Amino acid sequence: MRKILLLQGANMIRLGSRQPEVYGTTTAKELDAVLLDYAASRDIELSIFYTNSEGDAIDKLYDAEDGRYDAVVMNPGGFTRAGFALLGCMKGIKIPVIEIHMTNHFAGTTHSACAAGARGVIMGFGIKTYFLGLDAASHILEG
Amino acid sequence: MRKILLLQGANMIRLGSRQPEVYGTTTAKELDAVLLDYAASRDIELSIFYTNSEGDAIDKLYDAEDGRYDAVVMNPGGFTRAGFALLGCMKGIKIPVIEIHMTNHFAGTTHSACAAGARGVIMGFGIKTYFLGLDAASHILEG
Amino acid sequence: MRKILLLQGANMIRLGSRQPEVYGTTTAKELDAVLLDYAASRDIELSIFYTNSEGDAIDKLYDAEDGRYDAVVMNPGGFTRAGFALLGCMKGIKIPVIEIHMTNHFAGTTHSACAAGARGVIMGFGIKTYFLGLDAASHILEG
Amino acid sequence: MRKILLLQGANMIRLGSRQPEVYGTTTAKELDAVLLDYAASRDIELSIFYTNSEGDAIDKLYDAEDGRYDAVVMNPGGFTRAGFALLGCMKGIKIPVIEIHMTNHFAGTTHSACAAGARGVIMGFGIKTYFLGLDAASHILEG
Amino acid sequence: MRKILLLQGANMIRLGSRQPEVYGTTTAKELDAVLLDYAASRDIELSIFYTNSEGDAIDKLYDAEDGRYDAVVMNPGGFTRAGFALLGCMKGIKIPVIEIHMTNHFAGTTHSACAAGARGVIMGFGIKTYFLGLDAASHILEG
Amino acid sequence: MRKILLLQGANMIRLGSRQPEVYGTTTAKELDAVLLDYAASRDIELSIFYTNSEGDAIDKLYDAEDGRYDAVVMNPGGFTRAGFALLGCMKGIKIPVIEIHMTNHFAGTTHSACAAGARGVIMGFGIKTYFLGLDAASHILEG
Amino acid sequence: MRKILLLQGANMIRLGSRQPEVYGTTTAKELDAVLLDYAASRDIELSIFYTNSEGDAIDKLYDAEDGRYDAVVMNPGGFTRAGFALLGCMKGIKIPVIEIHMTNHFAGTTHSACAAGARGVIMGFGIKTYFLGLDAASHILEG
Amino acid sequence: MRKILLLQGANMIRLGSRQPEVYGTTTAKELDAVLLDYAASRDIELSIFYTNSEGDAIDKLYDAEDGRYDAVVMNPGGFTRAGFALLGCMKGIKIPVIEIHMTNHFAGTTHSACAAGARGVIMGFGIKTYFLGLDAASHILEG
Amino acid sequence: MRKILLLQGANMIRLGSRQPEVYGTTTAKELDAVLLDYAASRDIELSIFYTNSEGDAIDKLYDAEDGRYDAVVMNPGGFTRAGFALLGCMKGIKIPVIEIHMTNHFAGTTHSACAAGARGVIMGFGIKTYFLGLDAASHILEG
Amino acid sequence: MRKILLLQGANMIRLGSRQPEVYGTTTAKELDAVLLDYAASRDIELSIFYTNSEGDAIDKLYDAEDGRYDAVVMNPGGFTRAGFALLGCMKGIKIPVIEIHMTNHFAGTTHSACAAGARGVIMGFGIKTYFLGLDAASHILEG
Amino acid sequence: MRKILLLQGANMIRLGSRQPEVYGTTTAKELDAVLLDYAASRDIELSIFYTNSEGDAIDKLYDAEDGRYDAVVMNPGGFTRAGFALLGCMKGIKIPVIEIHMTNHFAGTTHSACAAGARGVIMGFGIKTYFLGLDAASHILEG
Amino acid sequence: MRKILLLQGANMIRLGSRQPEVYGTTTAKELDAVLLDYAASRDIELSIFYTNSEGDAIDKLYDAEDGRYDAVVMNPGGFTRAGFALLGCMKGIKIPVIEIHMTNHFAGTTHSACAAGARGVIMGFGIKTYFLGLDAASHILEG
Repeated sequence: MRKILLLQGANMIRLGSRQPEVYGTTTAKELDAVLLDYAASRDIELSIFYTNSEGDAIDKLYDAEDGRYDAVVMNPGGFTRAGFALLGCMKGIKIPVIEIHMTNHFAGTTHSACAAGARGVIMGFGIKTYFLGLDAASHILEG
Repeated sequence: MRKILLLQGANMIRLGSRQPEVYGTTTAKELDAVLLDYAASRDIELSIFYTNSEGDAIDKLYDAEDGRYDAVVMNPGGFTRAGFALLGCMKGIKIPVIEIHMTNHFAGTTHSACAAGARGVIMGFGIKTYFLGLDAASHILEG
Repeated sequence: MRKILLLQGANMIRLGSRQPEVYGTTTAKELDAVLLDYAASRDIELSIFYTNSEGDAIDKLYDAEDGRYDAVVMNPGGFTRAGFALLGCMKGIKIPVIEIHMTNHFAGTTHSACAAGARGVIMGFGIKTYFLGLDAASHILEG
Repeated sequence: MRKILLLQGANMIRLGSRQPEVYGTTTAKELDAVLLDYAASRDIELSIFYTNSEGDAIDKLYDAEDGRYDAVVMNPGGFTRAGFALLGCMKGIKIPVIEIHMTNHFAGTTHSACAAGARGVIMGFGIKTYFLGLDAASHILEG
Repeated sequence: MRKILLLQGANMIRLGSRQPEVYGTTTAKELDAVLLDYAASRDIELSIFYTNSEGDAIDKLYDAEDGRYDAVVMNPGGFTRAGFALLGCMKGIKIPVIEIHMTNHFAGTTHSACAAGARGVIMGFGIKTYFLGLDAASHILEG
Repeated sequence: MRKILLLQGANMIRLGSRQPEVYGTTTAKELDAVLLDYAASRDIELSIFYTNSEGDAIDKLYDAEDGRYDAVVMNPGGFTRAGFALLGCMKGIKIPVIEIHMTNHFAGTTHSACAAGARGVIMGFGIKTYFLGLDAASHILEG
Repeated sequence: MRKILLLQGANMIRLGSRQPEVYGTTTAKELDAVLLDYAASRDIELSIFYTNSEGDAIDKLYDAEDGRYDAVVMNPGGFTRAGFALLGCMKGIKIPVIEIHMTNHFAGTTHSACAAGARGVIMGFGIKTYFLGLDAASHILEG
Repeated sequence: MRKILLLQGANMIRLGSRQPEVYGTTTAKELDAVLLDYAASRDIELSIFYTNSEGDAIDKLYDAEDGRYDAVVMNPGGFTRAGFALLGCMKGIKIPVIEIHMTNHFAGTTHSACAAGARGVIMGFGIKTYFLGLDAASHILEG
Repeated sequence: MRKILLLQGANMIRLGSRQPEVYGTTTAKELDAVLLDYAASRDIELSIFYTNSEGDAIDKLYDAEDGRYDAVVMNPGGFTRAGFALLGCMKGIKIPVIEIHMTNHFAGTTHSACAAGARGVIMGFGIKTYFLGLDAASHILEG
Repeated sequence: MRKILLLQGANMIRLGSRQPEVYGTTTAKELDAVLLDYAASRDIELSIFYTNSEGDAIDKLYDAEDGRYDAVVMNPGGFTRAGFALLGCMKGIKIPVIEIHMTNHFAGTTHSACAAGARGVIMGFGIKTYFLGLDAASHILEG
Repeated sequence: MRKILLLQGANMIRLGSRQPEVYGTTTAKELDAVLLDYAASRDIELSIFYTNSEGDAIDKLYDAEDGRYDAVVMNPGGFTRAGFALLGCMKGIKIPVIEIHMTNHFAGTTHSACAAGARGVIMGFGIKTYFLGLDAASHILEG
Repeated sequence: MRKILLLQGANMIRLGSRQPEVYGTTTAKELDAVLLDYAASRDIELSIFYTNSEGDAIDKLYDAEDGRYDAVVMNPGGFTRAGFALLGCMKGIKIPVIEIHMTNHFAGTTHSACAAGARGVIMGFGIKTYFLGLDAASHILEG
């Protein structure tokens, strides 16, 4: 059974109430429930971690690397635009990190500072982006 | 049964022999076979179209919209950087277009001119990107 | 009787159904009918040509120069932003080319790559821009 | 009978003597005569106003809006590149303003600061641009 | 009685000793005393919170939104230039955030990354900027 | 009793009718009445001056400095983006100028050319911005 | 006897009191007296004109061209950075315009928008710059 | 005997009549004759192909790679500025491509989008550039 | 005996295992041992502090200033590119901060956001950079 | 009697034959003769030095400072655009350096790298620029 | 017999030992021998000159123009990026200068400051670039 | 005994008298004496070389490489901003070059053009920077 960490960055804890016209009305809690179900049905042991502090996110990624997880799916949220410390961390750890965003950055002006450290990037499918992130992790872990 | 068009842009026909250190050694032909199998197992009727001409790609997208397909997965290949005509077309058609790239643009300097017209974008998973593209199309068509 | 070519670039064939909130609901077919009437009432022999391929547009412009037409009115459509090959062609041919756009680029961020090769540019009057394009051609041909 | 204001911005009063290699030798006075004839033949009541002061131009536009004119054709002349106050005014008034320039900006490096506030823009037809400006106003007023 | 949170970002805790030639010699402690008085005289229940960590500031803003405060006055201090996570948070919460700076950024080269998420911005009045921030909050809460 | 000049720049005279979706429906006349009341209640002798000409605004600022006023509150309006002459003037006069804008520029793309010459800047509080401008002037004059 | 116009742009009327640490303490009035003397001793009939309005400056330049003056020495002052209307005027008139600035722009960040329309430019010699401007005009008029 | 393909991009077919003040009066036909002679005298089997369509050019380059030619000399003509699809193709094929231009881009503002995919670049020798392109191909094939 | 703080920023705790091809294989633990020896032999009391959180680093710097240390040597690590809060802190504290980096930024594209607040900067000597940082601190403290 | 050095930078030795359409046909030799006359008539002891090497020019400027000259008039010629070493030298020496150019840079795209180190700059008066340079030196030396 | 000067700029004297992975192992001495043979076989009298000083290179080019050579082939080497003095010289001399570079700049980020002054440019053919430079000179001298 | 060359670039010979408010009052001569002492006490054979010519500096670096020195410490001085020829040289020679600057560039706007060719860079410690440069050379030579 594969162990995957879902890391939710700054502001993601308010999913559902923050800018619902952009991010939809599914709350963080509801999302967690759906994803845990989805993971179980695909033989994935999923852990979910929320933080508004970039330093905590980095600490968690190093923990992940220390044998606790096989892969990380991360929505950097508010860390996206200035996440250079995250970038350095992602470049250095040996387990794959898949970066996801609910909206398509290309249709706006956001540029991710840390995506250069990801194995791959998926963006623009709303809540479904999380499913694709887990699928991508599975594909990679299958080799 | 869902009908999906895979549109392969300029230079994709040479997959496997062109810059294999970047794009791997799987040939276009081998990829087609694998994807048709993958699609069949997911109840997708998959058509694959290769072209080096942006005008032909646009013609094909309008055909797609005219009832022939439910969604399009497109790797614009060589059209990526100057594909503004594609962008206009993608913005205007009503069926979803998912743009995919085998490499992670954020780790380089490529910027897609047409991605702003896509429903979503997936990049960086090599050959596996095509599977994720089909998965994303399925997710969208499921609503 | 003056012979004028109306050249409709990439995506114009979908006028009326593509982004109607921007370009209106008049279809390409309806536009053609109205313009042929308008031309006839002004003693203009009007030919209309649609293409999604920049290479075909260039071939057509060289044909135009070879005695078939006295002037060209062109909406480059999807060729607008990367139409450098068109630019080279427009600069070289001897009959006047009037470039038209239905929307006012100055109110957005589009910049035409080929307008430097036009005799003049008209933009921002919606469907009426086509009438003004024909008027401008007439003014020029009158000397 | 339609009432149209032609507003001539900074330096236009010297038409004919200022940079004739660019703007031709027709003087402002001669242009006025030709345009008044042209307007009369098309059932337009044309008023022409010259000013070198952006503030006066703005005052005039507000007067125009107060029932004196149905539309404005304006060549901003020397106000073109820094005319942000004009832009704010044009965006706010309710009668249409058509911006015209005798030369094709796309073939040079001039960028109009106020064109985003115009209904439409016509450029590059020399003296004939004024005729097209009046035609465009007529088209708009006809609805 | 209105409840307002004053959020003091990175380095503000050293007010009075850090770069006094720029920020004056009033210490954070002295400022707090003066502002609490000022607030009391205007029937405002004022809370003041200092932090050097952007993640803590975001946590605090979400707390504020959860019924604890009616408005926030914030000097982002050291978060100003890279505060994109703050920006996302400010855009998403429903109570108004007024951003203040003691110096006039326009006379220097600082650009606030988060000001786009503020209801309004006040800068350049030194210590008095805090009074104006509280006044602005009052004006907004009065509707 | 403090004498304060409120200087309203280009297009402000049309407040209430120009782009009401941005600036509200309070007219210049109504605003004047409210501000004169507000000033009187705070022991301020308020004069209000409207102009669409940057030169006139500069003349007025020099008059202000010549003993007629103790401070200036200015909404440069249409002068905002190209007001370099205003900037030079503001830098040179000895009485404080407080620059105000009804909207928050940071949420858009406007950049004030003259704000570097202001003592402080307040933006984003709609009509209430004028009250805060007068408050700021009072704070400064109190020393 | 040569007739030369000295045109002093926005803010120059406050010479001596505006930013004396930059422009010195010689007032406009004192400068005029010295320059008139200097001119008289060199057989120049000198007229001096001050204005804060760019439109007035342009009107004056056209007057100058109409036989009233043989050359113009101009310190655009506050018009320097956005003086595009001045630029168009300077390019079009036939008498030489010499642009002068009391400070050396190259040691700062000011860029003159109108200097491209000048015959020559002199900057950085404080009050003495005016003498050199008159000398330069004399040299040119001597052929 | 070495087999070399000369690929002539958009607008080159009009050599001699298009902008002769830039490209001279030698027609495409005359150039072909001279080059075939030159090639024959150097034991080169030369094929010449003209196209206005970038897609056709790419198809031809892949054909060239499939054993038909030992090297390619290409003047991208109108494809120069937006030829990113060409670039991808040139980077991927294994036979050398030598890019040539009749004019020296460094003396103008043109930048080739595809030159990064060429083995080497030659520009600025007019018609003689073609001879040097063939010479360069010979040097490379000699090893 | 001089008290010096070595502050190791984000990701430095993984020295030796993170990107060893760039930063070498010496681990953080091994480095600490060597530096403590080196410091002892030079009569320096060295404290070493690692953190992945910029807020903690700032807290530590203020502690340092409060009499605990005479100087700080800091490798900002992952804080380098967005460390504006650090910059504000460094500018404000009174003890010298020497910024060090193991690689030569000039040979890459990294730009330090906080180096403007350092007394001096040393970069590019790998592990030896730490020795030079301590040497520099000694030189400064010797006066 | 004042001692002035005229320093002629790279390419000036070819005055008269190099680009005469820009710099005229007066040769360096003829210019020297005229300037020595002009200097003699104004009680100036003029020395003239030509060099194509920036290092030699700097050596000469330090010599000048060592009591040999009271002021320097310099046309940096070919050193203009990359003359940063000259800039450092000019900023450091104590005698005034007046930078001159025969053409008006503002009408082109040249930017002087060293002008920030000059006391003042004069440009655009052709050969006459040299006279004005000597006049300016005289004005400065008179105090 | 044609006289051609080969001018080798800064650092070229170390060809063969400096960055051999980029420039190959052929030494300057070996290259000279091969080129003198090549020239002799083509009836060219070749002189070769090496210098690390831009001033010396300019002196040499003026000598070349004074009847000593019919054309110059130059590899500016280290002068490439800041060679503006060279540019001025190249623009002014009457014999043709052909600029050559062993590597293809378009595949990197180097931009030649002096290439605008060359008749033509050849780059990217390694040692063979020198042969092509001599061929180009011959073609030009043949007319 | 290690042999180290200290290379002092343009303007360094005037240390102590040129801009003493920036570089201090220690003269070049005094610095030399102190450094020779410092070197002797550390068993370094130190040579010091001053030049204002970049070509001479390059010649010296090649001499250094030819067995005369084991390492170079260089303050490029006036060559800093345009020293691309130096950069090419530094990249090619095999002995280490340590670049030093007395001031911290990050606190200003200077950018070194040649630092990418250095082994490491040290800046901002005034005269002490030279000591650190020698220390760094020693560290490197110790391996």
